[in-house]
Amino acid sequence: MPKPQPIDYAAASPEVRAVFDDIKASRKVEDVNNFWKYLANDPALLQRTWFSVKEVMTPGALDQLTKELIYVAVSVTNGCGYCIASHSAAAAKAGMTDAMFGELMSVVGMANETNRLANGYRVPIDAAFEN
Amino acid sequence: MPKPQPIDYAAASPEVRAVFDDIKASRKVEDVNNFWKYLANDPALLQRTWFSVKEVMTPGALDQLTKELIYVAVSVTNGCGYCIASHSAAAAKAGMTDAMFGELMSVVGMANETNRLANGYRVPIDAAFEN
Amino acid sequence: MPKPQPIDYAAASPEVRAVFDDIKASRKVEDVNNFWKYLANDPALLQRTWFSVKEVMTPGALDQLTKELIYVAVSVTNGCGYCIASHSAAAAKAGMTDAMFGELMSVVGMANETNRLANGYRVPIDAAFEN
Amino acid sequence: MPKPQPIDYAAASPEVRAVFDDIKASRKVEDVNNFWKYLANDPALLQRTWFSVKEVMTPGALDQLTKELIYVAVSVTNGCGYCIASHSAAAAKAGMTDAMFGELMSVVGMANETNRLANGYRVPIDAAFEN
Amino acid sequence: MPKPQPIDYAAASPEVRAVFDDIKASRKVEDVNNFWKYLANDPALLQRTWFSVKEVMTPGALDQLTKELIYVAVSVTNGCGYCIASHSAAAAKAGMTDAMFGELMSVVGMANETNRLANGYRVPIDAAFEN
Amino acid sequence: MPKPQPIDYAAASPEVRAVFDDIKASRKVEDVNNFWKYLANDPALLQRTWFSVKEVMTPGALDQLTKELIYVAVSVTNGCGYCIASHSAAAAKAGMTDAMFGELMSVVGMANETNRLANGYRVPIDAAFEN
Repeated sequence: MPKPQPIDYAAASPEVRAVFDDIKASRKVEDVNNFWKYLANDPALLQRTWFSVKEVMTPGALDQLTKELIYVAVSVTNGCGYCIASHSAAAAKAGMTDAMFGELMSVVGMANETNRLANGYRVPIDAAFEN
Repeated sequence: MPKPQPIDYAAASPEVRAVFDDIKASRKVEDVNNFWKYLANDPALLQRTWFSVKEVMTPGALDQLTKELIYVAVSVTNGCGYCIASHSAAAAKAGMTDAMFGELMSVVGMANETNRLANGYRVPIDAAFEN
Repeated sequence: MPKPQPIDYAAASPEVRAVFDDIKASRKVEDVNNFWKYLANDPALLQRTWFSVKEVMTPGALDQLTKELIYVAVSVTNGCGYCIASHSAAAAKAGMTDAMFGELMSVVGMANETNRLANGYRVPIDAAFEN
Repeated sequence: MPKPQPIDYAAASPEVRAVFDDIKASRKVEDVNNFWKYLANDPALLQRTWFSVKEVMTPGALDQLTKELIYVAVSVTNGCGYCIASHSAAAAKAGMTDAMFGELMSVVGMANETNRLANGYRVPIDAAFEN
Repeated sequence: MPKPQPIDYAAASPEVRAVFDDIKASRKVEDVNNFWKYLANDPALLQRTWFSVKEVMTPGALDQLTKELIYVAVSVTNGCGYCIASHSAAAAKAGMTDAMFGELMSVVGMANETNRLANGYRVPIDAAFEN
Repeated sequence: MPKPQPIDYAAASPEVRAVFDDIKASRKVEDVNNFWKYLANDPALLQRTWFSVKEVMTPGALDQLTKELIYVAVSVTNGCGYCIASHSAAAAKAGMTDAMFGELMSVVGMANETNRLANGYRVPIDAAFEN
């Protein structure tokens, strides 16, 4: 297996094209992102991932912007360069302003800090949080 | 150094009590959580952490609920048991419903999954995200 | 200390060359990977790491391919770009097909997702798993 | 939102029961694990997660044991206590011996070590791995 | 929000310039690192982060070199490329030799390995560590 | 494979006893920690891990206390409860005071925060750190 390569629409199987078409229609975009072109190497993985992402990111009890902010928060915590870039763009498209991004980073930074302080001081869970 | 122990209000120095008082007044609570009682072992750390958390969690471009959801997302990603418990409670207090929590978990789960798919397939960042 | 630099065979001490020679002989390769050339900056670290990797990766109860798949799974979870690249290549050399890689990514993605769902819902360990 | 609570079969909606029934039939077990009882708080999340896990864990290019070993490797790397316990049990059921577990741990430990050595020494990817 | 861009001194607000000036004076440098130029997009974040870092990194019970070594250890564990580069340089400036760096990497690698062995074997905390 | 169980000295093979004896002699302790009793399930893993830890933790360019502080920093970042407990105790034995522990936690917390800020703002490495 050499380094994974993207599969473009032109070279894609009908099965993969159907997913690409659904992504393009759902997101009103001309072409799918690299992420989907790489997953296309495994059509079952592509299909399952797209249907899951589509279902999960549909506005419900949480609106689309909030969901994208959460996606960025996780991606920044994990240090996934691709995901930070793509979901920052998606969040901006959903309405994230520069001020919101600054506050998002502030919360993410603080949470990553206090998570470790709680670990290091071995803080037991308060009884009130166990009910 | 034996296992860290909490410092209760009664045993606290005036410096630590001042921070505890500010936490109680800001959050309108009777007593501070275990987290603060453990940080009180290092008054400078307690003070800096509280002032930073207070500033960061003040509603601004993002409202309080959104900030707490982000805090939970990071804590779940890092697997910090204490922080998951305390910030889930804080999020609920700020208005998080069961339905919101379910969607929060769905997004956090999906982001943790796709972060790894992007890593594994070595997906290059789309040119569009580099501007 | 400037940025770490690789140490090539020509510039290596006899101690480092001995390790390089053993790597080349064991793996039947012309030259060692960058990883080893950088570790060569600390001969004790190089030697200990190589002997440990060699011992651990020798087929035993688990065959070589399975061990390489596990190595990739960890590297993808940690987001180590170098390790993903080098161990994907090693896994391919040990027999990993494209279909296997797709399934590997699927399992790694799903595990990273459900790990967080278990964290977030604070799921207690079933009694059956405690025996 | 108080602490998440499990939903048992008796208290479950028809929608949740259908998933529980499918899990029990697929795995030939009397009752579902705690993980599923907690996810049942969000039926859509429960359903999507189960169908994904079921599809991903079906033997294909990789057999069931290999998939469970990979699941354990990720869970150990992330430090998810619940997942380590449940997937170690699943791996054992799929044929993992004590010797295999020891080798699995050895590879997981070594990968977590060398991932950091590659990070710290800032090792560039070999040209051979970029093709 | 397009990709974050750095804010140079010339383009900075008086508020941001005051922080930049303090960084330059404290560290006796001609210009601030990229990190600060990017945080400058959110002046409150810049200010809070700088004052916290300044306070935390001031020699106290631990000297400056030890603090920088710890900073590198965390950054390598998290795989933050920027932070590894900048704090390795800072550690070198504070006196870290090549031999120290090699031992630092050795400890970081070993800790990352044994952390997972403890997870995987589900090792209970010794009673002696609970007092 | 049921849940891993510790192997006590009385029940250990001569091979395992030899390692236990060396740990006890090196550390001047009456009995080995739980960590080693669990690794004893795989004698080769026990032996390799002990010899590596012993070599790595021997004072060299870095003294023993510094090495233990680094070990705690990594364990806190990874959230390994067992390792935090055991290495905090080891650090204390090597001379870590309460004040040092507080500063250690402060640096670890700050590093975990700024690692994410660098990720989120996608800060490019300064040219000065690339030489």
